[in-house]
This record gives sequence, C-alpha cells and structure tokens, in this order.
Amino acid sequence: MTDPLVIFTPSGKRGRFPAGTPILTAARQLGVDLDSVCGGRGICSKCQVSPGYGSFSKHGVTVQQDALSDWNAVEERYKSKRGLKEGRRLGCQAKVQGDVVIDVPRESQVHAQVVRKEATLRDIELDPATRLYFIEVAEPDMHEPSGDLERVSLALKEQWNIGPVSAPLSVLRKLQPVLRAGKWQVTVALNQPHTDRAPTIVDLWPGLYEGGLYGLAIDLGSTTIAAHLCDLSTGEVKASAGVMNPQIRFGEDLMSRVSYVMMNPGGEAEMTRVVREAMNDLALEIAAQSGVAAEAIIEAVIVCNPVMHHLLLGLDPVELGQAPFALATSDAMDLDARDLDLSGLNPAAKLYLLPCIAGHVGADCAAVALSEEPGRQTDLTLIVDVGTNAEILLGDTTRVLACSSPTGPAFEGAQISSGQRAAPGAIEKIRIDPITREPRFRVIGCALWSDEAGFDEATKSTGITGICGSGIIEAVAEMRMAGLVDPNGLIGSAAQTGTDRLIPEGRTHSYLIHDASATDGPRITVTQGDIRAIQLAKSALYAGARLLMDEFGTDTVDRVVLAGAFGAHISAKHAMVLGMIPDAPLDHVRSAGNAAGTGARIALLNRAARRDIEATVHRITKVETAIAPRFQEHFVNANALPHATDPFPHLNGIVDLPDVSFNTNGSGADGGRRRRRRG
Amino acid sequence: MTDPLVIFTPSGKRGRFPAGTPILTAARQLGVDLDSVCGGRGICSKCQVSPGYGSFSKHGVTVQQDALSDWNAVEERYKSKRGLKEGRRLGCQAKVQGDVVIDVPRESQVHAQVVRKEATLRDIELDPATRLYFIEVAEPDMHEPSGDLERVSLALKEQWNIGPVSAPLSVLRKLQPVLRAGKWQVTVALNQPHTDRAPTIVDLWPGLYEGGLYGLAIDLGSTTIAAHLCDLSTGEVKASAGVMNPQIRFGEDLMSRVSYVMMNPGGEAEMTRVVREAMNDLALEIAAQSGVAAEAIIEAVIVCNPVMHHLLLGLDPVELGQAPFALATSDAMDLDARDLDLSGLNPAAKLYLLPCIAGHVGADCAAVALSEEPGRQTDLTLIVDVGTNAEILLGDTTRVLACSSPTGPAFEGAQISSGQRAAPGAIEKIRIDPITREPRFRVIGCALWSDEAGFDEATKSTGITGICGSGIIEAVAEMRMAGLVDPNGLIGSAAQTGTDRLIPEGRTHSYLIHDASATDGPRITVTQGDIRAIQLAKSALYAGARLLMDEFGTDTVDRVVLAGAFGAHISAKHAMVLGMIPDAPLDHVRSAGNAAGTGARIALLNRAARRDIEATVHRITKVETAIAPRFQEHFVNANALPHATDPFPHLNGIVDLPDVSFNTNGSGADGGRRRRRRG
Repeated sequence: MTDPLVIFTPSGKRGRFPAGTPILTAARQLGVDLDSVCGGRGICSKCQVSPGYGSFSKHGVTVQQDALSDWNAVEERYKSKRGLKEGRRLGCQAKVQGDVVIDVPRESQVHAQVVRKEATLRDIELDPATRLYFIEVAEPDMHEPSGDLERVSLALKEQWNIGPVSAPLSVLRKLQPVLRAGKWQVTVALNQPHTDRAPTIVDLWPGLYEGGLYGLAIDLGSTTIAAHLCDLSTGEVKASAGVMNPQIRFGEDLMSRVSYVMMNPGGEAEMTRVVREAMNDLALEIAAQSGVAAEAIIEAVIVCNPVMHHLLLGLDPVELGQAPFALATSDAMDLDARDLDLSGLNPAAKLYLLPCIAGHVGADCAAVALSEEPGRQTDLTLIVDVGTNAEILLGDTTRVLACSSPTGPAFEGAQISSGQRAAPGAIEKIRIDPITREPRFRVIGCALWSDEAGFDEATKSTGITGICGSGIIEAVAEMRMAGLVDPNGLIGSAAQTGTDRLIPEGRTHSYLIHDASATDGPRITVTQGDIRAIQLAKSALYAGARLLMDEFGTDTVDRVVLAGAFGAHISAKHAMVLGMIPDAPLDHVRSAGNAAGTGARIALLNRAARRDIEATVHRITKVETAIAPRFQEHFVNANALPHATDPFPHLNGIVDLPDVSFNTNGSGADGGRRRRRRG
Repeated sequence: MTDPLVIFTPSGKRGRFPAGTPILTAARQLGVDLDSVCGGRGICSKCQVSPGYGSFSKHGVTVQQDALSDWNAVEERYKSKRGLKEGRRLGCQAKVQGDVVIDVPRESQVHAQVVRKEATLRDIELDPATRLYFIEVAEPDMHEPSGDLERVSLALKEQWNIGPVSAPLSVLRKLQPVLRAGKWQVTVALNQPHTDRAPTIVDLWPGLYEGGLYGLAIDLGSTTIAAHLCDLSTGEVKASAGVMNPQIRFGEDLMSRVSYVMMNPGGEAEMTRVVREAMNDLALEIAAQSGVAAEAIIEAVIVCNPVMHHLLLGLDPVELGQAPFALATSDAMDLDARDLDLSGLNPAAKLYLLPCIAGHVGADCAAVALSEEPGRQTDLTLIVDVGTNAEILLGDTTRVLACSSPTGPAFEGAQISSGQRAAPGAIEKIRIDPITREPRFRVIGCALWSDEAGFDEATKSTGITGICGSGIIEAVAEMRMAGLVDPNGLIGSAAQTGTDRLIPEGRTHSYLIHDASATDGPRITVTQGDIRAIQLAKSALYAGARLLMDEFGTDTVDRVVLAGAFGAHISAKHAMVLGMIPDAPLDHVRSAGNAAGTGARIALLNRAARRDIEATVHRITKVETAIAPRFQEHFVNANALPHATDPFPHLNGIVDLPDVSFNTNGSGADGGRRRRRRG
C-alpha cells in the first residue's frame, strides 16, 4: 500500500508520507513555508493549517473525513484558551492518515509577501534578520560543567540547526534568571545577520514568548526624522511618526551645518547628541502610540544623506563640504543601538545603515534604489528624489547611474517671498484662468478650492498663510500657461497681460494670489525673485538629469518617478511645464511617495535586500555634478521655461504655452548672475 | 650563470635569487621571519640584518665584500637620524649581488621567542593579535567615490594581503584627519583575532608610527589585582603593579561576596563598578610608572576565578554559590574595553578573557594550565594553585583532570589567631630546634634570622606583627618535627615536651613564638585552634588531589607544582610534612610562581595560545568535589599529620617525625567536628 499523499496549497508542493507523520514534519521535508516558533511542541500555534475535505479534481485526490488524525487534547486546550478559527488544525498535532490537501493560510507563512501599495513594484518577502525560537535547554550538570549560554547555543544547534550563537553582556545578564524562570524552556530572539557574522541573541523570555518583535525604519532627513514601526512577523506598519530634526538650530540646510562645524571645531558632537536624542524620543513616542513596549523594538534600519550619516555617527562632516567630498566610510554598517546611544530601543537592538553611494549621494538614495529598483526596469527610468539636494538615479537593466544636484531649498518653500513649509494653511495647489488671469487655490488642511462655497469658513482655523513647495511650482507653471510669465521667466506688466493682479515692484512685477492685508493677514504674491529662485532650482534638477542622460547616451527617458514626500505632491504636468524633469509621456510620470522610507522598510523586513542593495551600490556609476563642465552647460541652458515643443514634445496638445516675451526694464539680463549652492 | 645563493641564519633557510633582489624580498619568499612595518619602504628600520663576510665552511659559501649592493642614501639617512648598529644593513635596501649569509638579529624577528624564567617550560613565541602596518592609501577620487575606510581596507589588502577590515566608530572618528595629516600614509594598529572574526583597526597614526603597542596581562584575584604591562613587539614586561581588590569591603572571601548579592539583590552592580574602576586605576598607574601613554595599551588579557569573572562582567554570581554551580557563560570572551568601562586603555582596546573550566574552576586555572601545560608532560604532574579555593590540575599527555577544593582562607593567614596577610613584619619562615624546642624565624622585609646579630635593629621599622600563610605552614610542620604536635594535631603539654614555650590555654596549649607584650607589642603564638584550621585546609587540599588521583587511577604522582603567589613561598618539605600535597620526591616539587599571571601573559603575546587553551579546556575532565563521596572520605582521612612512611615514603631519611601521641583533655576527639567551607 502506498503512503498517503499530502498536497500543500498555495505552494502546490506535494509528497507521500507514512501514516502518522505530523503535517508540520511533512511541510518541513517538502520545504513548505509553514511557521513554527516552538518547533512542533504544540504551544505556539504558529503552524495553523486548513485541511480541505472532499474531491479536489485539480489535484486528482479525494480527501476523506478521516484523512487526518482526530482533533486532540493539545488542540482542544489551545482552542479553549486562545481560540482557533473554524476548520483550523495545528500542523504539529494533526497527523496524516490518508491523502489530504492542506492549505497554509497567510498568517502561518514565515516568508509571507508584504503587499506594497505601489502596484507596479514587487511585494516584499518577509525575512527579517531577527526571529523567535523556542528551545528547551539542558539543565546544568556538575559532572559536565558548561555555561548556560553554551547550553542555549547547543539547544539552538540541536533543535533548530542554528549557531553557534553569541550574546552581548546585556543579554548574558538576564540569561540565568530567565532560564530558571522558564524551567529551562525559553524563547530567544535571534539576530541572524545577512553577513557572515555569527548570530546573536538579542533578547530572551521564559517559556513561550507571545509578544511581538518590532523594527523601526527610520528616514533621517535634514529637516525631519520619520519612522515607521513595523511588526517583524507580519511586516505590518503599526505606526508612523515624525519629528523635526533638532539640528535645524545649527543650520537649516546641510551646508550650514557643515559650516557650523568648520567655525566651531568639535561642534559635530552637539549635533550628534541632539539628533540621537530626537531619534530616541521618536522611538519612545511611536512605541507608546502603538502600545508596543520599547524593548520589543529589536532592530532599526536607518537611511539618510551623507552629512546626516556622519553627524549621526559622530563623525566630522567637514570633508563632505569640499571636493573631493570624501566619506569617512561608505559601506553599509551593522551597529548596536548602544553605539548610537539609542537607549529607547531594546538594549541589544541591532542597527543597519544602508551604504552611501557617494559623498553627495547617500544611504537615502540607496534606499530609493532599493525601493524603486531602476536596475530591474526594462524601461529607462529616471528617479528624482527632490529635496534641498536632489538625488537622481537613471537606469534600466543594463546599468544605473546616480548623481546629486544642488537644487537649493526653493522647492521646499524656502527663499520664496511668501514661501513656507508644507503645513496647514499653506497653498499647495493653484489654478490661474488663462482668460481672466484670476487664481483659485487650495490650502493644506482643506479639501475645497478657494472659489468654492464654504472655503472661507473651512480655512478659518488654519488661515491662508503662504505657499509651500508644490504650490510655488504650480503657481509658476500656471503663470506661464496663463501668459503672465514669458519663456525667460519674466513677469509681464499688467498693461501687457490685462490683469490688475500684477503689481509693479521695483523694475518688475509681482502676481497677487491672496490679499488679507485689510484684516492684518498676509499678502501672498509670486515675485520676480521667486521665479528666479525656482528657475535656479529647476535648472539644477534638470541639468543633473540631463548629465546622467548624456552619460547613458540617451536624449529621452521612458519613465519618470518623483520620490520624496515633496515628490508625492507635485503634479506631473506642472513639473514638466516648469521644465523640472525631462520630457516623457505624462502618464509615465508617477509619484513614489517616500521611497527612501520604503527602502528602509524593505531592508528592515528582508535580509536579502541588504545584500542586494550593498551589491547594487557598488555597481551604480556615480556621476559628480560639481566637476562636470556639461553640468554647467545644461544648467545655463535649462534656465528658460519651456515651449511645449522644445524640448518637451510630450506637452504638445496637452497644455498651451503662450509664445509671449516681456522685457521689464532689463531684468531679463540677470541670467548670467546665477549662483550655485550646495546643501 | 646561477643566481646568487642567500642563506639566512639562525633559521638556515636558503635560496637562490636574481642579482638585485632586496634581502627583505628574499626573506619573504623563503618564509624567513624578518620584520617590516613599512613594507619595504626604507622608513621603519624593522628589517635590520647583519650580513656576514668571508668563508662560511658550515654553509659551504664564501661571501665577498661586494655580495650586497652598496650602502645607500636611505640607509645613510636612517643611520644619521636614528643610528644603526655597526655592520647592520636595512633588509629592504641591501640587494643581493653574490652569495651571502644574512643573520636576522632577534629584534628583527617578528616571531621572536620570549624567554621564560622557568627553564622547564617552553618559551613563548611572539605572535600578538595586534600589530602595526604602514600603508599608503589611495586618495579620494570624485569619479570613483568610496569611503576613506574602504580605501584603507583596500590598501591593507593590496599591500599586506589582509582584510577586509572593520573599524569601530572611535577609530572612524579620527580616520579622516589622520589620513590627511599623514598625506595618505598611515600606520594602523590592526587586531587580527584568533577566531574567524574580521580584523579590526584599533588605532592609527599619520605616517610611520614609532611608538610601541602594549598589552596588559591582568590576574584579577579575590584579594589583589595584579597586572603586567607587556611590549607587544618584544614581549618584554615593562612594568608590573598590583592593587587590592576593592570588593573586599563587600566580603573578604568570594562566598561572602556572593552572600552579599543574595542579601542585597542587585548588589553586584556596585561590586562590578568598583572592580572596573580599580582595574582602570591600575592600568593608568602602570602606564604612568613605565612612561607609556595609556592609549598605547591596545589589548588586555584577563584571568580570574568564576565569581570574579561574573562580577567583572556585571553578571549576578548567585548561581555560583549553590549546586550545580552554573556559570552564565564558560567560553572564552572577546570584548571591547568599553564593554567593561575600561576607559584607562585605548578607547578601541580589545579584551580577552580566558575560558572558565567549571563553576569552581575559573579562567585563572585555565591560565595555569596554559602556563604549566600538564597535558604536554610525560611525567604525571599535579599542579596546585593555592588560595581560598585551591585549583588542582592533574595530568600528563594522556589526559588532564581539574577540580577545586575549598581550603578556606587559613593558608592566607586568615582565621589564624596571629595570622596576617603576607606583608612586611609578618613571620614567613620559622625553624624549631628539635632539642631545645626554641624557635627562630624570619620576617618579610628582613633577610636576617631572628637569632642573627642585627635582627632587632633591622626589624625596628616593620616590627614583628604576625604570621603569614607560609609562616603558619612552616610553624605547624616544624612543631610536628620537634615533637610538639602529635600526628593527630594535638599540642603536647610543656611537661611532656620539655619547653616552657607551651602555654596552657583552656583544655589545650599554645606555642609561643614571639612575645613583645612587655613593650605593648604582639604576642605571637600558634594555638590548638590554628592547628585545627590548618588541618582542615590541608585536608581539603590533599583530598582534592587524591580525588583526581583516584579518577586518574593512580596512587602516586611524578611531579608537584605549587602555583600562585603563595605557592612560591611554601617550602616543599614543610608542605609535605604537613601532608598538604601527595608524596613525591622533594626535588620533584617546584614552585611556578604566579602561573595564572604567566598564562595571561602567554595569551596576550601569542594568538595560537588562545586557540590552544580554548581547545584544552574542552578536553579537561572536570571533577566536582562538592558531590564526590570519596572527597569526604579523603578529607576525613587526611586530617592527621603524616608519619614519614605513611603515606609519605619520600620523607623517609629526610625528616624525623617523632612518634608521639598526646591527649589534652579530650581535645583530640574533635576530629568529627570538621566543617566544610566554600569560598
């Protein structure tokens, strides 16, 4: 008589096993992804399966009611204590008696797919560095003396085939009481790095630990520090939070902070201290928010730009402020929480910093590359992470190029006369009627347009306070489409354009968007200076992209991805009207949201992704904008606002860009006074 | 024409090399041990050699005056700047021109033998974990961006075939300024562990570093902490120092300290803090003493008993106070100085703790095993490290056994009526005239015997303050030989022994050694209680040795080694008269001095020794005295003081042990009231 056939779904793996074989054992032998923390002892319930009964013509079997052993006492106890979904069995208890089809539900899979919202990209396979293992440890024996740690290591070897393992002093300190409290049964949280370093016990608990393990994906930006708290066993984001980077008081942009250190040698120590404190506070806040114990945060992945990288590590960033922009270290780093004084996490928590690509292109850009995978695209894809520096990636399966371009802070609302950070009350969207030249707009925190009923009431609490980055981009693009601005970026006079919203200001004009000065409120305008600032920023961004396209040997790209919190709010059409990004079909321009944060989350949830990005970064061709003569050339050439046909044929038929030309008392001659800024 | 022949002495290695080959290159190709820090750049002068000229009939060559290239400018500059011994050449500059014999002086050998004073044992081959490497690092290149650390790692790979290497944050912090100060030439101190962990840069300096690297061999005892500062490039002990273990205020012996933690949960933290502070202070003191910068102390090896091991690591020692005496961890440990708050060393200094053998048999005993190598002896050797606990090793090339025996503190002068620590003024040697029963003695700090002229004057400053451990052993043995004490340990009455130095005391007597009570000085006696205390201690020691002999299946040992600071001062004869150690030819009993400290020094100077002792410890058979019924039996049987023939035939003809028997009002009956003590 042949042994019964066991078929697992959804994997389709199948094999014959002697009657009496536990389902968990069959799954392991077939390499079916079925979880177990307790190793088949019937206590963790991670190995729940759903057997199917009846005819499975697809699989060619009919499953009898007695295909599995009877519901047993262990399952009964578990069900009465914790509950078990109808039809579920424990894989370690249910034994094969006849042909059977076993479905492994998603929550019983170790390597479940974490579904990403961005439908175009692969899901994340769950394979975190830190996992739980339940073990039974041999008791100490005077006749064969050995340390408790050595017997834990032996148990992991014998029961899970892992090790030898090590443990930091903080874990050794609790090892003896925990082993005894658990009567020699403990659950260990084991960090198994993606490198060839030995696994490390990062925590342990008496008996079966039923709490979760959590990790933080931290995007450490110059302005804000954002973190996602992820459940390492499901990949679920439990909470997200952000705080301002307290280093702002040492300089708003990175170059100011580097200058601060140049002026105040040793000043990096203070900046290091405050940013670590802020990260700690953020960790504690996010833990409290989600009801997770801070000690359950067992890992963190950090991405940041090179200057923040050095300042976080306590390294002097001064070399990053001058050619050749040498990093102290560029490779990925495995650190302990205590190395960075992150006492807000588990004392033995492990940290992973993604590698930096170059002195201007940081671990944040590496994280974008991990999330957006330009090297896996068959279409030539341009990825732009817009910030004070824009990091730009261009590539397809043949090669990937990277550079950083000094856009300055204009895109973030800084150096704009009515500019402000993206916050409630800020104008984020604007439309200008091409006939009347009247504006209407939306502010952050209100879903209504300014010309809709109820807008005044709805914005009473926030007010209308200024224009944020995406607002200024739309404003300039709309002014161009309405014929208020010519291709050189000059604002026409009211006489030329037929609107009294143009207000003479020195030798040029401003465009009035909102005037609350009668009630002591702000008067929000777009000035000639604002347009110049946006021109400088967009020229830098475009020049960087063009430089990479030159290097790649192409004049066109297939797709454009706008990354970064800011990128998520830019309209593709307005960006292209402004000439920020190279020409592409508008429906091939998409936003990737906080791709750097997503990359951090991927590295947190999947060890292989760490190996992957480390290898990828070595393969990326770095292009240095600071010394490329072509960059200057592109930068100067990109100053003008585009006509639809040149060099943006994809705008043809979509927008109307009036062929006007103004000359406001010679202000058009300032094209030569462009300055470059870093930071 | 055949290539010139190059013969190296003392190795005898030889080979033919094309004319023009530098001597250093020839040495490397032949595997001759010739040092170089700069890799042949003519700046470090470590590769000095002494060429020989004339006829070398032993080697069958005649060396012409032009066998080597002319003295060159590099050598001239070096000689004028730093001096070079007559006849020396720099191996990297002198090139082969004809057959030549090259002597490598000891100071040019990397793996020189460090000669140990103990002539019976192997010398130590110098192969420390941390060594200096001079490298030339590629400058940063904007077009091929990489971190400074990654280029250092590459230089080590290309120029020394080592790596990849890592560096802690403390080293990364100084990396950029040092590389630039050295104009991309630096010397790195690289720790290459004996395990498979990656090499780590522990320090670096601009250009060629000409300072030394130092290591501490620390013997952390319950009572004292002793350290040797060793030059890692020569093995030389630069300085030695010791301090009291400040934990004494929490309990004089180990068990009291464990009890302190039992009574005061968490009390180990305070003990941990004070012992780390004391180690730091000791490191700073020893550095200052020898004019070595504390930052040049780049490694430390620590040996200690299990309780001190746990207290140093910050681990609760309570499990070590009760069966089954489980260690939190028993394996050797590689730690960083910061793990133990040892800020007195280089910030990136590496620590190595030898493995513990069992819950009572610590890393100090492992160090004794490393120094004395019982497993390499063809004679069956018993090694006794006497202290509050005696650690005992017995073995030969076939196997090695170990145990710990609770001797109590009597051997250290504690619990002895006139006992004191070994310090100036303490009686350390004593002789009793078998006819007159008059004592004469020597005190620590004075070379004269008490019956020699000038003794009173010479001891005026120290006084005569008490009896130390070796003194009490000699006193009891001498009393036995003088017939003042019978084999049961009873002190006879003055009437029976014919000396008025026996003073009635309760139901028994005391023996008066020194009486300064007339001048308010001490009255130093040996009481019946003292003899009982010594009997208990020596019985425990002997019983432990016997237990190992049983386990080994032997009744005799070939050699006895007395280790420990105390062991160095015990006379073999007196120890055997007392029955402390098993019978052996008296000239086969030797002192090994501080063998634990020597073992620490070996592990400091030679990486292979670490692998060696880690493997050895796993092979040692541990015997637990606490639960062995035979131990109790041996302990009771060993209470009596020996007759020469039984069981100590080797005393025959050497000492006279009178066959007396006293009965002092039944005090002989207290043999049953023996108590065991641990700690």
